[in-house]
Amino acid sequence: MILQQVQIDLPSQSYPIYIGDTLFADSTLLKKHIVSQQVLLVTNETLAKLYLPQLKQALQPWQCDIMILPDGEQFKTLQTWASLLDHLANNKHHRDSTLIAFGGGVITDMAGFAAASYQRGIPLIQIPTSLLAQVDASIGGKTAVNHPVGKNLIGAFYQPQAVIIDISLLKTLPLRELKAGIAEIVKAALICDREFFCWLEQNFEKLLQVDQAALAKAIQRASEIKRDIVVKDEKENAQRALLNLGHTFGHAIEHCLSYGHWLHGEAVAAGLVLAAKLSEQHLQLSQQDTQRIITLLQNIGLPTSVPQQIPSSDLINAMQMDKKVQNKQMRFILLKSIGEAIVVENVDERDLLSILDK
Amino acid sequence: MILQQVQIDLPSQSYPIYIGDTLFADSTLLKKHIVSQQVLLVTNETLAKLYLPQLKQALQPWQCDIMILPDGEQFKTLQTWASLLDHLANNKHHRDSTLIAFGGGVITDMAGFAAASYQRGIPLIQIPTSLLAQVDASIGGKTAVNHPVGKNLIGAFYQPQAVIIDISLLKTLPLRELKAGIAEIVKAALICDREFFCWLEQNFEKLLQVDQAALAKAIQRASEIKRDIVVKDEKENAQRALLNLGHTFGHAIEHCLSYGHWLHGEAVAAGLVLAAKLSEQHLQLSQQDTQRIITLLQNIGLPTSVPQQIPSSDLINAMQMDKKVQNKQMRFILLKSIGEAIVVENVDERDLLSILDK
Repeated sequence: MILQQVQIDLPSQSYPIYIGDTLFADSTLLKKHIVSQQVLLVTNETLAKLYLPQLKQALQPWQCDIMILPDGEQFKTLQTWASLLDHLANNKHHRDSTLIAFGGGVITDMAGFAAASYQRGIPLIQIPTSLLAQVDASIGGKTAVNHPVGKNLIGAFYQPQAVIIDISLLKTLPLRELKAGIAEIVKAALICDREFFCWLEQNFEKLLQVDQAALAKAIQRASEIKRDIVVKDEKENAQRALLNLGHTFGHAIEHCLSYGHWLHGEAVAAGLVLAAKLSEQHLQLSQQDTQRIITLLQNIGLPTSVPQQIPSSDLINAMQMDKKVQNKQMRFILLKSIGEAIVVENVDERDLLSILDK
Repeated sequence: MILQQVQIDLPSQSYPIYIGDTLFADSTLLKKHIVSQQVLLVTNETLAKLYLPQLKQALQPWQCDIMILPDGEQFKTLQTWASLLDHLANNKHHRDSTLIAFGGGVITDMAGFAAASYQRGIPLIQIPTSLLAQVDASIGGKTAVNHPVGKNLIGAFYQPQAVIIDISLLKTLPLRELKAGIAEIVKAALICDREFFCWLEQNFEKLLQVDQAALAKAIQRASEIKRDIVVKDEKENAQRALLNLGHTFGHAIEHCLSYGHWLHGEAVAAGLVLAAKLSEQHLQLSQQDTQRIITLLQNIGLPTSVPQQIPSSDLINAMQMDKKVQNKQMRFILLKSIGEAIVVENVDERDLLSILDK
């Protein structure tokens, strides 16, 4: 059942995001967006165990080919991506074949980049299965794989035919990953919707209990916020940078801990708190606002400070290496208040140190 | 000196094509289009021997990094492309770095795809050095590498900041490659400009003598024809297919001979003649028009028939595998007359056999 729908209209592509219950195996819905005879389903081993029979059933109307990848961020590489392209080529997929990506951010990013590159682009349907991918990775057309030098260093901007967000899939998602996904929803509220932030303060427990109506509303609102920013600025310049609130710190934390120890959303949560503290200094964000952010994140069960073992100097070095640094100047997304983020260029290294050493 | 200029205005990007004499090492011209501090120059071993000192001199204003690839179609692979991305990442190129592709179609296609993929797209300047790349590969944003299953199977549509076509570079181009490039110019005239075809009948000798003014005019007109088609249809559907006149046959010939025995333009020349003969059958193209096409191509020194060692059945099989086959139907671009090409769907296999067996 479709509970919410968000329409994305970009110059390069228009597509719907469906949000609802048991949508992923809905042949009628899929038929609206698959015009080809051939389909390649891409998923991972963990999800295949849980959902493959239902997926196969739903994809019976098509000549369906299946590729099951190993599960984990360490496989989000050019090598795995090339194996997807080999599969498409060796199985004679035409340029009108549809690729269906069924998985978390690793699968949606990597299979999305394969769809973008095979024959210079074939139709793509995203079915994100983690909350993080549902609110973030599958909207905005960013596809990528990692490179030893950095995360998501190789990829493309490529828009899908449709995104199908099935909340019932979250029932099998580990609680820790659910919480990490909520961090990105909190981020969306902080950027531009104070009222939504208040709603999250009142409803976070429902989200943690996988309440369908509450999740549908939260995902819809977070998607709309992302949509409104992406539509203004498809290729990431000024506006789109706002979506990186908490991410410059977050990526640096992930880098210093070696990726995999913290989930991305956990690092973003700690990053949001650091961004708030820096905003107190630079933009007179009120202490009360900072405290509300910390309290909400703590109530959800997310980290709100940098792990003690990371020296401040390491964190600053990692931030300077971040690909969002332009012409070697440090750029941050900061908060004027809850619900109002802006871009601040050229933050001083000493300001950062004073925040980090507190 | 700039002799001609063609402006390309696409929804995704606007850029100029400069056509002239000794432009490739013109720092003033480059400065108009390089806004970054960092530059990566990509070329091959053959061209580096001829032109690297001048290129280095011209690129002195920038922090210039150079990557010299081995020369040849056999290196147009995912592996070579990945080595370009490794080079960009390992040398800490930012997302505002400019990639300059200096070479024939192999370099412009492969380096173009690297620019499209690194950090999801960095600025690109194309300096095509072969006539084929000048009139064809560097206009329209098609970038790609080959896959064992097929040519140009993996790539992206990606537009450059500028294309610099330097006719003086053609003085070092082997005559056989010059002729192959002229085949694509003849193709452009056949699609939609009968007058230009007449001009080619009168001026082909000047082109073969590397006459600057004649080449500038021919490249300009071929570029405009391609531009007018691409602007209508950036992502190749109905209109853009016209540019494949002669190519369904041409690709099949290249495939059956194993790539490398004939140049692409040579196979296209023979393909144009087959398309003309099929057009006599299907669209009442006059025998006189077919004869004029054959005479011009022969005068240039291009092949006008399929090599005898290729059985017709092999050629038809290869055409059915061509990626331009949609939902297994055979689609051809045929001529109503010289200067008027149209798309014809679902050509009968027997019609093909009767042409090929003549």
